[in-house]
Amino acid sequence: MSMMDMTFLGTGSAYPAPHRGASALVLRTDGECWLFDCGEGTQTQLMKSQLRTGRIAKVFISHLHGDHLFGLPGLLCTVSLNTNPDPPQKLKCVDIYGPRGLRHFLRVTLGLTGSQLVFPYAVHELEPTPDQSPEEAWLSTEVTTERGALHPQEQQGRSITLDPSSDTYLLLEDSKFVVRAFRLYHRVPSFGFCVQERDRPGRLRTELLLELGVKPGPMYGRLKSGESVTLECGRVLTPGEVLEEDIPGRKVCVLGDCSSVLGQAPLRLCAGADVLVHEATLGDEQQERAVEHGHSTPQMAAAVARAACVRKLVLYHFSQRYKPESLHKEGEGDDVTELKRQAEEALQGTDTEVVLAEDFLTLSIPLKRTKK
Amino acid sequence: MSMMDMTFLGTGSAYPAPHRGASALVLRTDGECWLFDCGEGTQTQLMKSQLRTGRIAKVFISHLHGDHLFGLPGLLCTVSLNTNPDPPQKLKCVDIYGPRGLRHFLRVTLGLTGSQLVFPYAVHELEPTPDQSPEEAWLSTEVTTERGALHPQEQQGRSITLDPSSDTYLLLEDSKFVVRAFRLYHRVPSFGFCVQERDRPGRLRTELLLELGVKPGPMYGRLKSGESVTLECGRVLTPGEVLEEDIPGRKVCVLGDCSSVLGQAPLRLCAGADVLVHEATLGDEQQERAVEHGHSTPQMAAAVARAACVRKLVLYHFSQRYKPESLHKEGEGDDVTELKRQAEEALQGTDTEVVLAEDFLTLSIPLKRTKK
Repeated sequence: MSMMDMTFLGTGSAYPAPHRGASALVLRTDGECWLFDCGEGTQTQLMKSQLRTGRIAKVFISHLHGDHLFGLPGLLCTVSLNTNPDPPQKLKCVDIYGPRGLRHFLRVTLGLTGSQLVFPYAVHELEPTPDQSPEEAWLSTEVTTERGALHPQEQQGRSITLDPSSDTYLLLEDSKFVVRAFRLYHRVPSFGFCVQERDRPGRLRTELLLELGVKPGPMYGRLKSGESVTLECGRVLTPGEVLEEDIPGRKVCVLGDCSSVLGQAPLRLCAGADVLVHEATLGDEQQERAVEHGHSTPQMAAAVARAACVRKLVLYHFSQRYKPESLHKEGEGDDVTELKRQAEEALQGTDTEVVLAEDFLTLSIPLKRTKK
Repeated sequence: MSMMDMTFLGTGSAYPAPHRGASALVLRTDGECWLFDCGEGTQTQLMKSQLRTGRIAKVFISHLHGDHLFGLPGLLCTVSLNTNPDPPQKLKCVDIYGPRGLRHFLRVTLGLTGSQLVFPYAVHELEPTPDQSPEEAWLSTEVTTERGALHPQEQQGRSITLDPSSDTYLLLEDSKFVVRAFRLYHRVPSFGFCVQERDRPGRLRTELLLELGVKPGPMYGRLKSGESVTLECGRVLTPGEVLEEDIPGRKVCVLGDCSSVLGQAPLRLCAGADVLVHEATLGDEQQERAVEHGHSTPQMAAAVARAACVRKLVLYHFSQRYKPESLHKEGEGDDVTELKRQAEEALQGTDTEVVLAEDFLTLSIPLKRTKK
């Protein structure tokens, strides 16, 4: 059975404070780590956590604000220091996904600092649409386009445009996962990511197989992998007859900074998610200020969670005025647990659980046994 | 009387570890802070220190390696958040000095992330010479030259070339300080900085003045500022007659990563320094490895200190294998105090004091009463 969990490395907004790092979280599946956003100091937070620095296999950057990005060049250097370079043919390419301009950012920062990596990397850029942010925030291709030769360890990445039929971006598809991105509204183009684990075949009904006279052996494997087999008696056995119901894949959605999602596609894509990670920079009482800065409040995050019928809503990206719960003193300053209360209130009547993220919190994401 | 002190914000090499930050130190004089190098996480170290984030007035970057630079874009953003934007005419330009390529680095990182600052900034670039690093590390102007429009808060900086007569770079001169840079040898072009405080007039001999019948008043100020005055009796009094000896200015030298200094100019410039900050990445027993990576050992740092007859040698930029002294357990792993012992041994027979820098160590740099 495959494990999946999520560890928050930074849950603060604007800058990395001593008690709340800048945005970063790691989704871990069977030993491979995927990093979502990488504010300054993420590599140091990673060292303080239980995760192993050398395992970052993919990086997803939601938008190009510094508190989500400034840690990336240094993190790549440190991942490289922690990667065994032998044998070189075993070194996989680190795939990095993010808005147009990210390739230029990395090529310049790694290039000017003479940073060499032991592994190859590729930046796959999402092409934003102009309605994702105010007009004045739009970066021209003049500003975002990389120039000159590739970095010595850089492989040519893809440019990914919006698929008009689904109103989403297809980032990757393999035997285990499909990852798509969707558009958010923020001060600069910002994206959400949806990681959909593929359904996997259910357990073999071994009792039934034994009754049919099929003993453990190669036929079990073929049935499990979806093949029909012919028994000695000539009977053809299909997988559907001897497999329990499919085990549904898990779905994890991580949204970048936003004051809203664009259109209905994000809600369709996130529908029924096991975990939805949504920002809640300020409390409901400051909604006007939050929206003015392109941010959300707990009530706004809850509205997305409700519309998408998610199991768990995790709030993060808190204004640095909210101290971690463990450091908060009764009656002094802003209380982060109030943000949780506001989201819970807005989710009354649903089964959605609300979780407050804190730096180094690890959430386990268990397999579901059946489709809900 | 003017104060001067130095606070180390990061004393580790290669990357910011939880117990030893990446390179950064602040020289503070009368409330103005000058930052030397800015590894990732410097802004957070600054918040943890006693210093005030909003006071960074000048930045000096010794070389373009990430562990000395990756914190700069984020630091500027956070200094800006801590700067009162009113009245705008009171906002001074933050002057940033460093090797060619630094202007491009900042324009791209601040530009792509949409980072706005409330104050103007200017990057003054030092033009390295090819003998400062191995040939393959040389960055072509193709790679280092900034393009397109200035960042909205950017003012055009200077390009500073080596002054062949002194073999140094003149960075700034004002009524209080002269700052020069000099060349080091490292894997990439690296520089040292020498901050020379100007001598100031000695104390007024008020007893003598009273004997001559000159009472406290405007004449005292004129004499102190170096003017001669004519007494009622017609006698002309020169400042030299009534001022004690000049108070010599302090001299502080901070060297970037290096395995050696280039030529004799650095030694002449650093001669008699109150404080010389020099890297000691590895112990003497690993000198070969240190030099191979362009670094120094305590003995090598001590040789520079000895040749320049400095009062105090401060070692920093330790390999992350050296835990801070407070965390080191007897008999376990590498002992940073051994680096101090090695430098002290190499300085036997001199008056030079050796100090091990640790994160958040503050060294006071007192005024000297007389020329040595």
